[in-house]
Amino acid sequence: MKKPSALIISAHAADFVWRAGGAIALHADMGYEVTVVCLSYGERGESAKLWKQDDMTLEQVKQVRRKEAQAAAEALDVHDIQFFDLGDYPLDLNNEARNRLVDVIRSVQPDFMMSHSLWDPYNTDHMNTTRFVLEARMIAQAWGHNPGEKVLGAPQLYLFEPHQTEQMGWKPDTFLDITQVWHKKQAAIECMQGQEHLWHFYTNVAENRGNHFRRNSGGQAGGRNTEYAEGFQSVFPRTVDKL
Amino acid sequence: MKKPSALIISAHAADFVWRAGGAIALHADMGYEVTVVCLSYGERGESAKLWKQDDMTLEQVKQVRRKEAQAAAEALDVHDIQFFDLGDYPLDLNNEARNRLVDVIRSVQPDFMMSHSLWDPYNTDHMNTTRFVLEARMIAQAWGHNPGEKVLGAPQLYLFEPHQTEQMGWKPDTFLDITQVWHKKQAAIECMQGQEHLWHFYTNVAENRGNHFRRNSGGQAGGRNTEYAEGFQSVFPRTVDKL
Amino acid sequence: MKKPSALIISAHAADFVWRAGGAIALHADMGYEVTVVCLSYGERGESAKLWKQDDMTLEQVKQVRRKEAQAAAEALDVHDIQFFDLGDYPLDLNNEARNRLVDVIRSVQPDFMMSHSLWDPYNTDHMNTTRFVLEARMIAQAWGHNPGEKVLGAPQLYLFEPHQTEQMGWKPDTFLDITQVWHKKQAAIECMQGQEHLWHFYTNVAENRGNHFRRNSGGQAGGRNTEYAEGFQSVFPRTVDKL
Amino acid sequence: MKKPSALIISAHAADFVWRAGGAIALHADMGYEVTVVCLSYGERGESAKLWKQDDMTLEQVKQVRRKEAQAAAEALDVHDIQFFDLGDYPLDLNNEARNRLVDVIRSVQPDFMMSHSLWDPYNTDHMNTTRFVLEARMIAQAWGHNPGEKVLGAPQLYLFEPHQTEQMGWKPDTFLDITQVWHKKQAAIECMQGQEHLWHFYTNVAENRGNHFRRNSGGQAGGRNTEYAEGFQSVFPRTVDKL
Amino acid sequence: MKKPSALIISAHAADFVWRAGGAIALHADMGYEVTVVCLSYGERGESAKLWKQDDMTLEQVKQVRRKEAQAAAEALDVHDIQFFDLGDYPLDLNNEARNRLVDVIRSVQPDFMMSHSLWDPYNTDHMNTTRFVLEARMIAQAWGHNPGEKVLGAPQLYLFEPHQTEQMGWKPDTFLDITQVWHKKQAAIECMQGQEHLWHFYTNVAENRGNHFRRNSGGQAGGRNTEYAEGFQSVFPRTVDKL
Amino acid sequence: MKKPSALIISAHAADFVWRAGGAIALHADMGYEVTVVCLSYGERGESAKLWKQDDMTLEQVKQVRRKEAQAAAEALDVHDIQFFDLGDYPLDLNNEARNRLVDVIRSVQPDFMMSHSLWDPYNTDHMNTTRFVLEARMIAQAWGHNPGEKVLGAPQLYLFEPHQTEQMGWKPDTFLDITQVWHKKQAAIECMQGQEHLWHFYTNVAENRGNHFRRNSGGQAGGRNTEYAEGFQSVFPRTVDKL
Repeated sequence: MKKPSALIISAHAADFVWRAGGAIALHADMGYEVTVVCLSYGERGESAKLWKQDDMTLEQVKQVRRKEAQAAAEALDVHDIQFFDLGDYPLDLNNEARNRLVDVIRSVQPDFMMSHSLWDPYNTDHMNTTRFVLEARMIAQAWGHNPGEKVLGAPQLYLFEPHQTEQMGWKPDTFLDITQVWHKKQAAIECMQGQEHLWHFYTNVAENRGNHFRRNSGGQAGGRNTEYAEGFQSVFPRTVDKL
Repeated sequence: MKKPSALIISAHAADFVWRAGGAIALHADMGYEVTVVCLSYGERGESAKLWKQDDMTLEQVKQVRRKEAQAAAEALDVHDIQFFDLGDYPLDLNNEARNRLVDVIRSVQPDFMMSHSLWDPYNTDHMNTTRFVLEARMIAQAWGHNPGEKVLGAPQLYLFEPHQTEQMGWKPDTFLDITQVWHKKQAAIECMQGQEHLWHFYTNVAENRGNHFRRNSGGQAGGRNTEYAEGFQSVFPRTVDKL
Repeated sequence: MKKPSALIISAHAADFVWRAGGAIALHADMGYEVTVVCLSYGERGESAKLWKQDDMTLEQVKQVRRKEAQAAAEALDVHDIQFFDLGDYPLDLNNEARNRLVDVIRSVQPDFMMSHSLWDPYNTDHMNTTRFVLEARMIAQAWGHNPGEKVLGAPQLYLFEPHQTEQMGWKPDTFLDITQVWHKKQAAIECMQGQEHLWHFYTNVAENRGNHFRRNSGGQAGGRNTEYAEGFQSVFPRTVDKL
Repeated sequence: MKKPSALIISAHAADFVWRAGGAIALHADMGYEVTVVCLSYGERGESAKLWKQDDMTLEQVKQVRRKEAQAAAEALDVHDIQFFDLGDYPLDLNNEARNRLVDVIRSVQPDFMMSHSLWDPYNTDHMNTTRFVLEARMIAQAWGHNPGEKVLGAPQLYLFEPHQTEQMGWKPDTFLDITQVWHKKQAAIECMQGQEHLWHFYTNVAENRGNHFRRNSGGQAGGRNTEYAEGFQSVFPRTVDKL
Repeated sequence: MKKPSALIISAHAADFVWRAGGAIALHADMGYEVTVVCLSYGERGESAKLWKQDDMTLEQVKQVRRKEAQAAAEALDVHDIQFFDLGDYPLDLNNEARNRLVDVIRSVQPDFMMSHSLWDPYNTDHMNTTRFVLEARMIAQAWGHNPGEKVLGAPQLYLFEPHQTEQMGWKPDTFLDITQVWHKKQAAIECMQGQEHLWHFYTNVAENRGNHFRRNSGGQAGGRNTEYAEGFQSVFPRTVDKL
Repeated sequence: MKKPSALIISAHAADFVWRAGGAIALHADMGYEVTVVCLSYGERGESAKLWKQDDMTLEQVKQVRRKEAQAAAEALDVHDIQFFDLGDYPLDLNNEARNRLVDVIRSVQPDFMMSHSLWDPYNTDHMNTTRFVLEARMIAQAWGHNPGEKVLGAPQLYLFEPHQTEQMGWKPDTFLDITQVWHKKQAAIECMQGQEHLWHFYTNVAENRGNHFRRNSGGQAGGRNTEYAEGFQSVFPRTVDKL
């Protein structure tokens, strides 16, 4: 029988770590096969530290970033990580890449998907990725696309936390307790040697989302004693049997 | 051990029937004790049919509406229905009423609460009720309000479906399958003799929300075969262990 | 047979002139009986020029402002102008005033109503007025309010143009050509001796809304040659037989 | 003299039927020449029922869908229906197609246009179509595009009703009474053999929009006795001589 | 000559510390006279730790909270702190209190004002305070309110950071570098013995806003080396001589 | 030492004049080197008057428009004006043009940038330009784009005033006093011979924004006596040392 699965689409190599590392590790622990697609290595736009070194080449940056991402994926018990190598700043989101993503979606048949916020004036790669993911999700649901393949159902698309939430118009509707896998997320974060300036930032985020979890689960009147959490925004409504 | 419970705050006597009847009956079936508070009977503003009769008095209208609401509550297996009799069009949402609602909230200790949309230019009673409920929820969480009483945790506040969703800025994030209790909701609807013109309307709503449930649970690729559903908008984020 | 009618609710004595003077004069020309309700004289908050004079009293300011408003109303062919004298900055929007407004609404049975924008951080009197008007409209529609009176239908509520449209979140969906009555609006504007600094401002507004009218009616490819216009935002959807 | 005309741009073959069939038939009755442009047949994404049959080919699906759309157009008294055959899921909205649409717009010189909602996370074809239509409308207004041709004025662009209005951020500002042509819309709907699961859904929509029409035209105090209606959102402000 | 001044309106005793402590200390350093108005002590709703002690009374809680707030104000070099003692959960925002606030505003003649977010479904005291402040600001600008007094100009109203920014729809447009006064804010925070669970949370907030400051001032390409910052949302547009 | 600088990106040749002429002249006066990039001449879509002349060709229109724009730039003391000649209605915003813009941004190293509103249903060129500018800004910040070049910091992107502000969802947060350079803006406006119908319109806009400046700087209680102003919306938060 098919295991539960999840698919995370990350514009640049490190996004899945900061923004969804806890969700990945937690669901891997629960038996989910989590696939991560990195559309680029963030080689041009998110590797300043490397570029400040002498004689650096694009190929070298990509290799370093790939290794870091693979190490982080391992720390998070990712089932499969794929690098689309589309270039970054800007991403080249062409038709071939889109069909490749549709193939991955259909192959993974995810119970949920994850990607970036809908708006990001600092980083158009992020918002373009989400639009690209919505398009691929739609195609994967089309009975006439590669007829005979298993058609995609209607998995939720969660938008993970951007760097400046309010500027991106991102509003979390779901907080996930990641306390028990925090050590894994921390280990994954520390794989990202090129962005050490963000380690403390995202630790603070996790702690403060822990506070929000406690407050929203009851606060001092029975709230959960969560230490670390992640927040997500849902694109689609949930379908439930119980409120 | 305390049974699970829910608290529905309805501006007028019939609102809980059209908008949350399925959720009430379904959770009652699951063992929830559901309490309904009707802030008014809708005696002035939502009883046109009665007022068209000769020699009608306010007291008579209130009695008829009360009986209808009680019959509907019974059909839905409501645990307790309370009438605050605050007058309608407009509701008189005074301090005494607020404290009374706080008492009910603390007594019920609901796992979730329900009320109207945040905005309603047609019916200010509806949006004023929701503001009033938010205020009462806040007071019920205050350790210094009636010290010694059990303080409220952080129950979700669901906003049930208004009459013209788009005009009210209401966006459902949760669809609940009410197929198995539809016969009870239908029976409750038919208790509302004074608003027969709405029976068919809300049957259509339930069928079309059933369609939305099917679509969002997978559509033709594995979606649930739901016939009737209700939609709700959440005010607060959820706290979960699994996405 | 009843003439067509309109009801304008103005927080302060001059608001109806700047913001709806053209609509009033134009519909008066078409045979509408236009009633204006001024909730206050704007005696405290919108009469700076008068207060700079020596020995001015509140009563004197109110008298001057009343005369100006009456003269403006006459210039616009207003059918009836009523002063509720509720005080301003802030308005005292009490229950008695609300019932008085409901009586006016039921008596006028307006084909359309008009009031302020929904949000105004500069002037809470404005946004409180609109909320008050929505409440009164709702009560006027209630069959159980003063049973036997003619119940209100569902007249549109137009929101007229505030002083800083973008800050108030006001978006016009309707432009009205007031070219043929501009001379009346101009005459009415010039009745407002206490706010001469606004005459030129609102002339500019009328000219630029004329430009928007031209553009939206076809521009250089068949647009109307409108010189002066007013803009309005509708609260409720229209019901039509033709698009 | 030129007859009045309208132009409906439909992403997939059936959209114009569910969403604007009543408006089309009604205006045809009034003497409008209504042109429908179907950008695709919906052959891949909206033909699940056909693809479940054995040995189906893309060409066959397109033929079936084309026939259904033509039959529906006939039932609605459409003046002209054009199939751009751009492929679907996703639409290939290329420059050539855009110029072709500009040609149609200039040729039809529509009194109003219609297309999809501005946002649709379920179906990017829909929102991409609207953006494409806005672009084509702009080009058709350019005096330097094919100089000498008759330049477009400023027709309204109405957005017709999407499948899940609240998720698409669609808010109707106009309800059209389609009672007298409902039988034609029903006949057109029944031409869409491949999407029988939507017949009942859109009948419910039409009935409930009829209720909204009644309510917004006066409700129990003089409202129109409308049985079926359609709702539309306007992109541009109206220019009028009377409110 | 009058010193520059600022006025902070805090719903409960501790709000000004968490949310604006840095801005207060920094401007005090620059010679501003900063006045803080605490509308309540937060005695019922934000003193859970105290209420868990035996034999606690409302009066005792208020005294403890008052002392903490005074100590914090001293640590921040506040010029004047006033306690309106209006009660909390809910605040009693009556006319007398409003006039008292108007008096303070006119007396302080602040160069800028500060208060809470416009929306807060968790804590209606917060949003009611902001509405109350907007009303008082409007009255303070009225030439006819206590004629002869110096009338208020148009100071900015900054909204300080709420506890869950995204849920409150709060979006900062201004980041203030508070690195040089961080030790004062920290000292003030540690005066709030009753809310020790929030110390770490707001330290994280200050650090992460420091990161946002660095990023928005140039990031790795010349950004300021800010360690701690606070964010604010402006209600009104700025008027400047240079962009 | 490098002079301060600004970069204005204008979709069509005249946009920078109407919408930012005052800001340009004022900052030039203060010693800024202001560069203007015109992505097109507006030759097809904004040159109706020219196209109404006999025997006009695209090349001629472009020449006339170029001369007008150059004359306007001179009147405003623009340091450098560049014409990308990408065609208009629609703009062809290809990769080569984007890299060219990135080169300009890196070369100018602007203290602030300016472009169009984020939304414009009348003119997709405008909103596409802003998206294009955000993308180019992001690339200019990438250390791996043309390594060795000076990387861009984080200049503000101001959105200048569109033609119908409310329809474009544009909200100014900054008003700039341009009284002292108004004569230069007026002279520049009068260079635009092909759009004489807009001269008066934008003079009215400048006067009314002057009124908004006065009001927001203190009104009758100490407000600045500004006669002409321009409004701008900021995309990014400001980083400051003083509120």
